[in-house]
Formats: sequence, structure tokens, C-alpha cells
Amino acid sequence: MCLMVKCALCVHLIYSDIVQRSREELKAIRETNPGLKPTLAIIQVDIPADFVSTQIGLNVMQICLPRQCTEEEVIEEILRLNEDSRVYGIFLHLPQSFLSKSVRNAIKPQKDVDGVSDLNVGRVVLGDQRDGFASPVAGAVLEMLARHGVYLFMAVLVGVEGPLKATLQFLLQNNGMMVQTCQWSSKHICHFEVFTEMFVAVVICQHVVRSNRRWIQEQQYQPWRLRPLKLQPLSPVPSDIEISRAQTPKPISQLAQEVGLLPEELEAYGNTKAKVHLSLLNRLQHQPNGKYVLVAGITPTPLGEGKSTVTIGLVQALSAHLKLNSFACLRQPSQGPTFGVKGGAAGGGYAQVIPMEEFNLHLTGDIHAITAANNLVAAAIDARILHEATQSDKALYSRLVPSVNGVRCFSPIQMARLQRLGINKSDPSDLTPEEVRAFVRLDLDPEKVTWQRVIDTNDRFLRKITVGQTQFDIAVASEIMAILALTDGLADMRARLGRMVVGSSRNGQPITADDLGVTGALAVLMKDAIKPTLMQTLEGTPVFVHAGPFANIAHGNSSVLADKLALKLVGEEGFVVTEAGFGADIGMEKFFNIKCRTSGLKPDVVVLVATVRALKMHGGGPNVTAGVPLPKEYINENLQLVTDGCSNLKKHIQIAHLFGVPVVVALNAFKTDTQAEIDLVCRIAEASGASAAVQCHHWSRGGRGSVELAQAVKEVASQKNHFQFLYNLQDSIVEKIRTIAQKVYGADDIELSPEAQAKIDYYNQQGFGALPICMAKTHLSLSHMPEKKGVPTGFILPIRDIRASIGAGFIYPLVGTMSTMPGLPTRPCFYDIDLDPVTEEIKGLF
Amino acid sequence: MCLMVKCALCVHLIYSDIVQRSREELKAIRETNPGLKPTLAIIQVDIPADFVSTQIGLNVMQICLPRQCTEEEVIEEILRLNEDSRVYGIFLHLPQSFLSKSVRNAIKPQKDVDGVSDLNVGRVVLGDQRDGFASPVAGAVLEMLARHGVYLFMAVLVGVEGPLKATLQFLLQNNGMMVQTCQWSSKHICHFEVFTEMFVAVVICQHVVRSNRRWIQEQQYQPWRLRPLKLQPLSPVPSDIEISRAQTPKPISQLAQEVGLLPEELEAYGNTKAKVHLSLLNRLQHQPNGKYVLVAGITPTPLGEGKSTVTIGLVQALSAHLKLNSFACLRQPSQGPTFGVKGGAAGGGYAQVIPMEEFNLHLTGDIHAITAANNLVAAAIDARILHEATQSDKALYSRLVPSVNGVRCFSPIQMARLQRLGINKSDPSDLTPEEVRAFVRLDLDPEKVTWQRVIDTNDRFLRKITVGQTQFDIAVASEIMAILALTDGLADMRARLGRMVVGSSRNGQPITADDLGVTGALAVLMKDAIKPTLMQTLEGTPVFVHAGPFANIAHGNSSVLADKLALKLVGEEGFVVTEAGFGADIGMEKFFNIKCRTSGLKPDVVVLVATVRALKMHGGGPNVTAGVPLPKEYINENLQLVTDGCSNLKKHIQIAHLFGVPVVVALNAFKTDTQAEIDLVCRIAEASGASAAVQCHHWSRGGRGSVELAQAVKEVASQKNHFQFLYNLQDSIVEKIRTIAQKVYGADDIELSPEAQAKIDYYNQQGFGALPICMAKTHLSLSHMPEKKGVPTGFILPIRDIRASIGAGFIYPLVGTMSTMPGLPTRPCFYDIDLDPVTEEIKGLF
Repeated sequence: MCLMVKCALCVHLIYSDIVQRSREELKAIRETNPGLKPTLAIIQVDIPADFVSTQIGLNVMQICLPRQCTEEEVIEEILRLNEDSRVYGIFLHLPQSFLSKSVRNAIKPQKDVDGVSDLNVGRVVLGDQRDGFASPVAGAVLEMLARHGVYLFMAVLVGVEGPLKATLQFLLQNNGMMVQTCQWSSKHICHFEVFTEMFVAVVICQHVVRSNRRWIQEQQYQPWRLRPLKLQPLSPVPSDIEISRAQTPKPISQLAQEVGLLPEELEAYGNTKAKVHLSLLNRLQHQPNGKYVLVAGITPTPLGEGKSTVTIGLVQALSAHLKLNSFACLRQPSQGPTFGVKGGAAGGGYAQVIPMEEFNLHLTGDIHAITAANNLVAAAIDARILHEATQSDKALYSRLVPSVNGVRCFSPIQMARLQRLGINKSDPSDLTPEEVRAFVRLDLDPEKVTWQRVIDTNDRFLRKITVGQTQFDIAVASEIMAILALTDGLADMRARLGRMVVGSSRNGQPITADDLGVTGALAVLMKDAIKPTLMQTLEGTPVFVHAGPFANIAHGNSSVLADKLALKLVGEEGFVVTEAGFGADIGMEKFFNIKCRTSGLKPDVVVLVATVRALKMHGGGPNVTAGVPLPKEYINENLQLVTDGCSNLKKHIQIAHLFGVPVVVALNAFKTDTQAEIDLVCRIAEASGASAAVQCHHWSRGGRGSVELAQAVKEVASQKNHFQFLYNLQDSIVEKIRTIAQKVYGADDIELSPEAQAKIDYYNQQGFGALPICMAKTHLSLSHMPEKKGVPTGFILPIRDIRASIGAGFIYPLVGTMSTMPGLPTRPCFYDIDLDPVTEEIKGLF
Repeated sequence: MCLMVKCALCVHLIYSDIVQRSREELKAIRETNPGLKPTLAIIQVDIPADFVSTQIGLNVMQICLPRQCTEEEVIEEILRLNEDSRVYGIFLHLPQSFLSKSVRNAIKPQKDVDGVSDLNVGRVVLGDQRDGFASPVAGAVLEMLARHGVYLFMAVLVGVEGPLKATLQFLLQNNGMMVQTCQWSSKHICHFEVFTEMFVAVVICQHVVRSNRRWIQEQQYQPWRLRPLKLQPLSPVPSDIEISRAQTPKPISQLAQEVGLLPEELEAYGNTKAKVHLSLLNRLQHQPNGKYVLVAGITPTPLGEGKSTVTIGLVQALSAHLKLNSFACLRQPSQGPTFGVKGGAAGGGYAQVIPMEEFNLHLTGDIHAITAANNLVAAAIDARILHEATQSDKALYSRLVPSVNGVRCFSPIQMARLQRLGINKSDPSDLTPEEVRAFVRLDLDPEKVTWQRVIDTNDRFLRKITVGQTQFDIAVASEIMAILALTDGLADMRARLGRMVVGSSRNGQPITADDLGVTGALAVLMKDAIKPTLMQTLEGTPVFVHAGPFANIAHGNSSVLADKLALKLVGEEGFVVTEAGFGADIGMEKFFNIKCRTSGLKPDVVVLVATVRALKMHGGGPNVTAGVPLPKEYINENLQLVTDGCSNLKKHIQIAHLFGVPVVVALNAFKTDTQAEIDLVCRIAEASGASAAVQCHHWSRGGRGSVELAQAVKEVASQKNHFQFLYNLQDSIVEKIRTIAQKVYGADDIELSPEAQAKIDYYNQQGFGALPICMAKTHLSLSHMPEKKGVPTGFILPIRDIRASIGAGFIYPLVGTMSTMPGLPTRPCFYDIDLDPVTEEIKGLF
């Protein structure tokens, strides 16, 4: 080796050259990524070393360990640096005795810029350095030999050991030299010092820059290297749980990697579910969004027309068959009905989210967190009423602002309440008795508490309980669920939780969660629930499951956050498909006017799901009832009923066009549909303004059965559209309701009950008048009358009452009655559900 | 290479030799591990190959892929085999064109018996094959050279590429040869075929056997290579959450690996919690158990005396300081009180489970699962009462046993009910009207429904609600929680859930969850909750958190399953430390008589926690009240109070000795304790029969402060003991209660209320008389009178009522009143709790 470093000039030239190139590369990287500060971490014993990195502009972190430190301590440092996202390279500047196998291999290979790990040595030997790093010394030796055109017959390696020796030996031998090693210490050879000091340093820096560049390349948009799961659909189609169980899901960490998530952005919950960190939004902030597709439906029969299966079939087709990045974003179903009436929410047939039992049960605990948060508010309300009723102002004050180690002070949330009361004091002893009274007494009117307890079980008996004025709802009806669905981050969620109105005081002031002092605790209970859950379809394509607000008294759409994360992950050429509950008159209208208004996201295309069955019903077919065999009209061809029923389809297409969004009609084909019926629907749909109308067979054939739909969606989404809201927030509450009733439902006008009118006056007075409207109406008709099918006209929409979810941010008029707590039937489906204690397989779930 | 295979005889000799050695090694492995069937998986294209493995006795799995298969398909196969626990080696018998970098590196290095992955090549080059495998061909070439004593100056490699070429080249060069490669195909060289066919096969088999042996070695007991987290305790000691947050926990997967868990036995829940599969019990069934240590306490003050901190300090000392494998097993705390009154259950000071906020909040959702299961039973009860009240026998029958596609049949759980009713029929149309009536009518008496709804919130208002005869308890009071704590597996849990009695019929028959048909659904809801959750202490030592039954109406101990798993994981020389709630008269008595009886596990030593503060109270000191400053007696030295109070300590030592278990007294030292007080307690404790008595300072100093305790526990645990139960199950209920009252509490006798007597008669009649007893008594005194401190005598224990948890498997007499639903104070601690929306850090929690 001493032969090679004779020419100091040459060394200097190569050195300057590498410095120059690395500096420029780093500069270029920084220009496009101003936030990055790539760091090299050096672990050394005792003496801090100078380093050339400043010449290049690289950040250096020097970690000095005591000379008597143990192997374990070195490894601990390395593990810490492995997880530090600022660090792109780790260099062990340690005596040979510290460089044990365990130490060397503790370094993450992609940060091992010194090429000392077994894996990186293996890569060198196999001649492949795309992903790894070769020892800088070895690299520099070869570079110098090459520049000088030197060919040595024999090289003697002096004072080198371990990975460097192995690498150097291999590379030199590969260049045809005989290599001998020699046990002299490096001290005997003068130039070696110069060589190591300068060259190792600069090549290591070069490696850090390369590591940084690789990382950046990984961030950039690219078609996913998604490994789809193969489907071999059977006929007849087995039960949902049989299909789900027959497929082995990919480990969720593998799917996450395939769609470009970093390991530190993932929190696995078992092997098939994982929560995704919101920090992703920040990392991909410069990434353009993908296309945003909404799946909505015509007015359904009580059996549902398959919007979820269309959603999942569509992403299976887009991702696994057309090889386009695509994500489905779904609601988390309530666990309550799972044990009551059959029918999961994970899709069905060969278009499902798997494992479907995980999807339908606890998932990652978000609904449980909502239940806990909701019921903490309820307990806080009743406890406060009790304590105010039984204690004097002074006693309340001394308990609410207690002396701790002789000091009394307001907590931050109490300071906020003082400010709302107009009391600008911060010393508890400064308050006047009137101010103390105002502060300690929320004076909640028990008759006007609007907050309900919730439970995630179908339990009709809890509807009737009276505790104060509250009763039980099913958990998904909680305002906290609606907040989870609409929030855009932790700070916003916390603020919304604080604004929730739980009732009013005896003098008519709204009382909020902030007034109860419970906001922070609610945010803590919800801190994990805010992260969307990643799962997969039967074909191994990604799905976000997040939030599932009740579609009656709330807006019934999955979360804004999941959509935002997914739009970044799929990237510019990709697709995010989400679903709006019920018919387009309800779910889609709320999706546009509430969810899109909150999120600022613009939809590119609406997929409108129709079935021959539902169209026949709208055309005048007999009633369709769950649990009763279908009348023959629905089994045999009947083109007249289909033609007549298409009026409903046409109306829904027109509703979508009101918002300026193009429509693709997806005819969800059943085996009883005839080709003539299917062709007829597609013809009428296109004549009614749909940009395309196609049949789809995802239920029986998986993504392959929806390829035609996927192609139509891809084409229509690439066209420009002119999305607009249906009303302005500044319109009066009555105006907004009337606009929806007339333009969407086709009503002649609306009629307000005296209660509704009084509430409108109250909300206006409280400054809640500029919120969007969330109509609570039956989904079984465009009107408020479930039995009116087709396109009802000539009716007045009655507004029975009006309520408000101030935290979630909408006003909800009640049209007719709506149960917020389902019950169990005589033979709940739990009779069929069981767990095999040996295989741990679930039986009888759907 | 053609030079080397000239000698066919030599080839054959070496071949036979390897076959012989491998066969014998495999035979030896099988003798000690009869269940193992180590398998080699071969992936090949088209033509199945013969293989020598049968000569060795190895199992072979041949995977044939079509010739036109893609790289992705090969990788998919490999990934599947990586996860297959039967497969110890994967061999790609594929044309060179398939062996891309991605394919080679998809194989798990420990299964890469052909040495083709970059990592294994790197290991060869670095001369270290302890963990990896070198290419069999290369290995065989070198072996032959060595046997022949051949030294070649130059070797020509013909027809080899990729990893084999690199490995061979390196190894030959390392033996001083010049190596040249040549592009001839192997077809030109006759002996090559022989060579590959025979040698590769046999060396690969040898590698599989080695892989299998490595795996077995990993299973065997060994001291853990645990990487403790360093502690640098501050003074004064910061708040619990500050201490918790200042420590960075190890990734939970790393801790799991350190304690010998396999990746497939772990289900991560984020990065700091993971559920552990029960299959571990099967894998380690032949491993001897570790020592079993119970932490109990003297009769406490209302402030508690620090059993949890002692438990955690002790395992920190054992694992991180004495380097003994040790596990703590703790209860999961109810989330309800977290937002009411301060005080976590994760320990405190420098003896904590981290992250403490995860421990105290949702954890892995077990309590939420219990709530869901519990309330499903409640909803099922009320729904059934409603449906029976409103429907005829015929209507009920046709709904309970509906016709599905024209066929009526009983579900398995309905068949079980028929059998209990003595109806041996399986065709629904065969039942007589009387039998139908008996089958469809549970005829639950609404006055005698004993099942309560639960909620995991401190909500006093729910105590008062009346829905039928039920009311709300806090979730941890559910019988399902007690079942989770006592069960030993899925099948047993399912059976216990089915046996739960929810009330009785009007003619006095007990009605069970099985009668309601809900058992399978409950098991499904609880399928994840049954797996214990792994967390870590502040010093990075392992902790199981699992189950937290109410210590009043249930037995108040963590789960049997967590203890069993931990005892296997620590191995023969290790320690499992668990804690029993309240004083030794309650938690410990139930631990021995109920938990140990159920589990069959025998405790080795009891650590009895005492404080100078509690002893002074028992010696006649003034009342100790939460939230009020301590009287001066507790702050200044007072040897007389301590001496007098030691009567309580002595009594608790005697209680432990009743069960034949030796006692180590742990004096949990506070900063106000004087050395004289501490020495006095230790002296009296040893004089009273304790095997040792030591002070401990874990709260202020972590594990280092409990080393003396750990040493004492280690020593005492090594002594033989004679564990015995206090009563026989066959004793009458009254006898069993009297035994506990007299021997443990020191009562003169018991007195039964008429209700209690009636219940005893009823339980005897129903065949529940042989269950153990779970006393529901105040923890603030050895007697039933909380104000009686020290060692009360001369009292009669009044038994107000008796209840039964048939599923959990115990009878619980009520001594005095016990609230099963706590309330919130005027200023709940949620006022101080908040979440920083940017850092996501929790503030103000403890």
C-alpha cells in the first residue's frame, strides 16, 4: 500500500476533485430540498477529530465515548443513530478492538458509509454497490491505481484488518494482483497517515451525500412496486369470510414499504393493520395530489346496492390490473351491528378488505377511544352539576383552584375560561366574589344538556334510560366521531373538541367542553385515533380505514386526514377512491358541501353505483324487504320497469352535475340481470349526461371484473372539471336548507316547526349561523317519505327540529324521526359466530 | 475446477462422510426434539429433481414453478417459505437468469443454505460463518483440495457466475491461488455434473441440519443478552411523567428478541407495546419454570405503600443489575380513574413501566374488548326478555330457528342448549310443543338478572340508572375480566364465558351466556385480549401487563397466562415477580387460594412491602387522609409507634406462613424515615419469622436501590418450601368462609345474614358449592371495620350477602358495602392533562 501514496500531488488532486463534486452535488440537493441538513455521525473514543466535512458543507455530529466504554455502549449509540432521521452516515472512528462483528453489523447498511458491515462487504464482492457502500480506503486505492495506470503484480497489505482487509484484498485480486498481508503496524509507514486522514474523510463525506441522494430519490413520485396478491375466483362465490380467510394478506410492513411509507411512519397493530403517522403530510408536502374519486349511489333498496364493493373492486382494478397507484379510503364500521344483523362493511365477494374480521371488530381501537372520550364528557357534566348543586361558591372555588404546596394558580384551561368571561386576572386571590361565582358556576340547565352517553353495542334498552336529560347513542353517533372525520391535525382536533357545546346554562349561554376543563384529556384519549389505519384489499392493494360518523345526524364520510395522506402517497398519476354513505342526495351532498369545504380538496369524478334491482323498484316494482325472497319482477327480465326507474338514476346524475363534477355510472351486475337490461341502463345513463356507463363484476371476479370501470374512471378523471359548492356559508340557515331541499331533493319548499325556528334564532344569536348544513333525512327516498320511490315531486320538506355540532362544525336539521341506537333482533347473528380455539379462526361472521 | 473432480473415489468418500455425519446429527436432534420435522424447500422450474435428502432423513418440499414465471412470483414463493416455521433451508434450483439480486436477497439469511445472499457472501469474505452459510460448491472444492493436499498455483473457474463465482474466487485466492475465469459452459466438462449433483445436494442437506441445530440452540435456556437502559436518577426526583418521558424505550421488537421471543410470536401495537402469542407455551413446554415471586403488602394507609414500585424496582435490580432473567407481571389499570384522581399504576419515580401514558390509557384495547363483550351480554339479555314477552312460542321458534334456503337447523350452541334440556333431537320439526316452549323460553326473571352493564369511566350517575334490574359498573368489575385473569387458553376461556350465569329463570334455574347463544361472539370479541401485552421498565427489562380484575368483588391479580409465559421465558434460573392487590389478607390470600389453585403454579417467596408510615398508623398514629398534609408523627422519628405498629407486619408474615411460603420484608424507604426506624423494622421483621428484611430505594434510585432486596429474594427463593392451600374445595361454603375469617383475619367467627344463608342454599343446590371463596372486604383493616388498625381481635365477621361468578369460578361473600362504580371529584385531574399538538407529548398526567 505504501507504494500507492507516494505521489502527494496526485492525492491532492483526487481529493480536491471529490470535494468539488460532493460539494456541488450537496448544493444541488439543498436547492430542491431546503429543509434537509444531512448529517454524518462519527463515533469515536476520547479524542475529537477534525474533519473535512465543512469543506463540503456537510453537518457532522461527533459522539465521544470514554476509552473504557463497553461494546454494548457503542452498539447503543449506533442503534440510536440508526433511528435518527437527520443522520445519513455513521462512521466508527474507533480502535480496531472495538470493531467487533456485533458492532459493525449494528449499523444500518444504508448508513454504513465506511462499508464495514457484512452485507456491504458482500455487495462489494458481488460487484453491486447500488444500495450499499464499499470501504472508502479500498475505493480510493483503486481509483488512484486507475488514474496512474499502475498495474502491480503483487500488493502487500500492511496494518489492515477486518472488512477493509477483505474488501481491499478482493478488489485488488479482482484486478489481477497477488495480494499478501503483513503484520507491521501502520506506524511504520509514513504516508499512510496522510492517506487515511484525507482520503477516508472525503470519501466518507461523498458516501453521506450519496446516501442522502438515495433517500431523496426514494421520496420522489414513482409508480409503486406493488406485489399484488393473486386471486382465483371460485364459482359459485363462497361466503365473505371464506373468501377472506382463503387469502393470506401481505405483512402490513411490506405493503407500507411498497406504497412508499418509511418504517418510522408506521405503527403496526399486529401483522395486518398499522396506524400511519400524520408527519407523512409534512414529508410529502411538495408532492402533487392524485385524482380524487367519490363513489356514491342512486336511492337504494333496503338491501344496499354495493357501493363498498364497487369502491374496493375499483381500486383492485386500478392497482393490481392497470398498475396505477391507488388507495381506497373507507369508514370504520360500528362494532354494534356486527353481532345483530348480518352484513359487514368490508365489501364482499372478491372485492373485500382483509382480514375482514379485523376490519369489522376492534380494528385499532378508534371507536373505543371515542366511546371513552365521549363518556368522560358525560361524566364530567353530571359530576359538575352535582358539585355545583351541593357546594358554596367558596368551596367550589377552593376545590377548583386548590392550594398546592401553598400556591394557588389557574390551570391554562381555566385561564382560557376566565378570558371568555372577560376576567383579565391571573392571580386567584384577585377575583371579586361575583367573578368567582361566574367562574365556578357553569350553571348547566339539566333540561338543556344535549350531550349523550354512547356505547358500541346495539342496545335498544339504553335508548330509554334517563340520567339527567341524557340517553345513550351508538358510539358512531358521537360528535367526537364527526370531529375525527373532519379534522386536519392534532391542533385542530383539540380546538374542535374544546368548542363542542354540551348544553346551555340557565341563562341560555352555550357551555362547552372547554368550560368543563376536559379538552386536554379528550385530546389525550384521541391521540392515536387521529392516525388512519392501513389495511389491504383481497388483491393486496392499500386501504385506509378511518372514522365512521353516523350518516344520519352527521355527514357519514370517512376522514379528511386519510384522504389527504392517500392523495400524497398515490402521487400525481394515482387515484384515491372514497365512498359517501347512502344515496347521492345524502352522502354525496354532504361530501361536497361539508367534507370538501373543510378539507379544501376537489373531487375529480363521481362514480354513481346503480343496480337493475333498485332501478326496477324505482320504476314501480314491488317492495323489497330484507329477509324476504325477492318478487319475480326482480328475477326475470323487465325492461319497462328498468326504463321507468332510470328517472332516479338521471336525477342523481343531475345532482352531481350541480356541483360541476363528471359522472361515471357503475352498474353493479347481479347474476339475474339480463344483457338487455344492462345495455338499457348504460344507454339511458349516457343519454342522461353520464360521461360513461359500464357494468362491473368485482363481486364475482375481483379487480379483473372492474377493469372496464377503472379505465372509464381514469379517462374521465383526466378531463378538467369545475367543482363548486351548492350554497355559500354566508347564506342564512333557512336559505341553505331550502337550497338543498329544492335543488337536491326536488321539494317545492321547506316548512319549519316552531322548535326548528326557535333553534335557528338561538344559533344565529350565538354566532353559529355560518356553519354548513348536515341534513338528517331518510335514505330510502329523495323526499322525506321512504315509500316515495323514483323522483318524487310536489312536496314540502318538513323540518321537525334543528341541532348543532359546533365542534364538528355543522347544523343538522331533523327531517322525520331518526333512531341513534339500534336494537338486536330475536335471533341475532351472534348465534352463528364462534372461535375455533385451536386454529383461532372465526366462524360464522358474515 | 475440472482438475479437482478427477478422483471419483475421493468424491464418493467425502460424500458418504457428510451423509453419515448429517444423518447422525439429525438423528440426535430428533431424539431430543421428537416433534421437529426439519424441511428443506427447493424452488425449481419445471423438472422435479431427485435429491439425496432421504438418505439423511431430511424432509424435502419441492416447489415447481412454470418456466415462464416472473421474478415476482419466485420472490412471492420465497417470502412464503421465509415465514414457514417447518422450513430450515431454501435452495433455488433455478437457471442463472432467475437468480437476480432481488431474488437472492429475498431469502432470509438464516435459511439461505446455498449461500447466495449478499449478506452470506459478505460473511464468507470476512471469514465468519457462525451465523451464515457459504456456498456448498465452494466449500466442497476447498474440502477436496485440503484432503488431497493439492496446492494449485492457478485455478480456472469454468461456467460459474454470481455468488458462487465470487465466493469461490475469494476462497481460492485466500489460499494463495491465482484465479482466472472462463466463459465455457459447464457442458464441456464431464465431471462437473457429477460434482454438482452429488455434492451440492449433500452439503445443502448438511446446512439444513446446521440451520435446524442453530434454531434449537436459540430455544434453549440461556441468560438473556439484555441491553439495559441506563438510568441517571436526579435529585429531587422529578414527576413520574417527566421521568418516563426522559427515557427512550427500546423498540419492543428488540426487547422481544432479547428475551427469546420469535418474531412470529409477537404482534406489535406501535413501537412500545406488543401482544405475545400463546403458542409460546407450546414451544417452550419442556423448559423448566423460573422462580415465582409474589409481592404483597401489610394493611395499607389510604395512600398505598408502593407494592407496584417495589415490584418494578425488584425486576430492574434482578435483570439490569444482577443480570438474572426476570419478568414483572402487572395488572392493566382501569382507564376510568386516570382522569379522576391522580396516581398511575405503572409504578413511580425511578421504578416505572414506560411509556407510562401508554400503560395508563388504552394499552392494547383489552379493557375495551371486555366492555364490548360485557355489554353485548347485557343487550342480549334485555333483547331476549323483550322478544319473549311480545312473541308466541311459535313465532319465537321460527325466528330462533329460521328456514334458510328452505332448510331449518339448530346452530351448535342451540344443540348444546337442547342437550342441557335433555332433548336429544336434532331436527327442528321433531320437537313437541312442550319441548319448543322449553327451548325458546329462557323465562328470565327481570328481578333476578344479575348481569350489569359496564363502562370504563368514573361515572357515579350510572350507578343509579335502572334498566330492568341492571346498573353500570366500572369495566374492570366485569366477570369477563376475572375470566381473562384466570383462564389458561382459548378453549378454557370460551368454556368459562359460556358458563357465566346472568340471572335465573322464574322457576329458579340459572341462565347462562350459553343459553343466550352469545358465547362464540364473546370469544371472538376477546380473541386478542387473551394475549398478554409486553412492555418494559425504565431500565429496559421486560414486563407483561395483562388483566386487571377488580380487587373487591374479584380476586385482584394479574393473569395466569402472563405468569405462565413469563416463567417459561425467564427459564430455570430466572424470576417472575407479580403483585397481589391490597394487603396480604386480601390480595395474597386470593392469589394463593384462587389463582394458584387454578394455575397449578407454586410461589417460591413472598415479598411483603411495609412502610414506616403505615406501621406508625397501625401503632396508633393519627389518621392518614389523601390530599391532607401528613401529621407530624409521620415526619419525625417515633420508635414507639413503629414498634407497636409492627404487630400488623408480624400478622401478615404469619398469614404467608400459613401457606408455607417464606417471606422477605421489603421496607419501602421514604426520605423522612430515620435509620433507627428502618433498622428497628428490619429487626422486628426478622424476629417475627421473615427470612430476610431489607430496606429499598428503587423510587429514588431505580434498580440499583433494590439490589439488596433482589439478593435477598434470590437467596430465599432457592430454599425449598412447602406451599399448601388454606382450605379444601370440598369443604362447605360456610366452612371455607370461616377458615379465612378466623385464620387470616383473626375473627372469632362469622355471622351470615338471611340473604347470605339463602344464597348458600341456592348455590349448593345448583352444584356451585365446591368453588373457592373470593372475599369482598375492606383493605384498610384486617377486620371488616376500616378504622380498626393494627391487629383487631374479638370480632365477628358479618357476611351481608353472597354472590357467585360461575364463569370465573368463585363465590364472593360481601362483607360491608362496596362501590363498583367510582365517581369524579370536583376538580378531576383532567384539568391538568393536555396534549402538545406539535410534539404529541402528554402533559400533566401524574
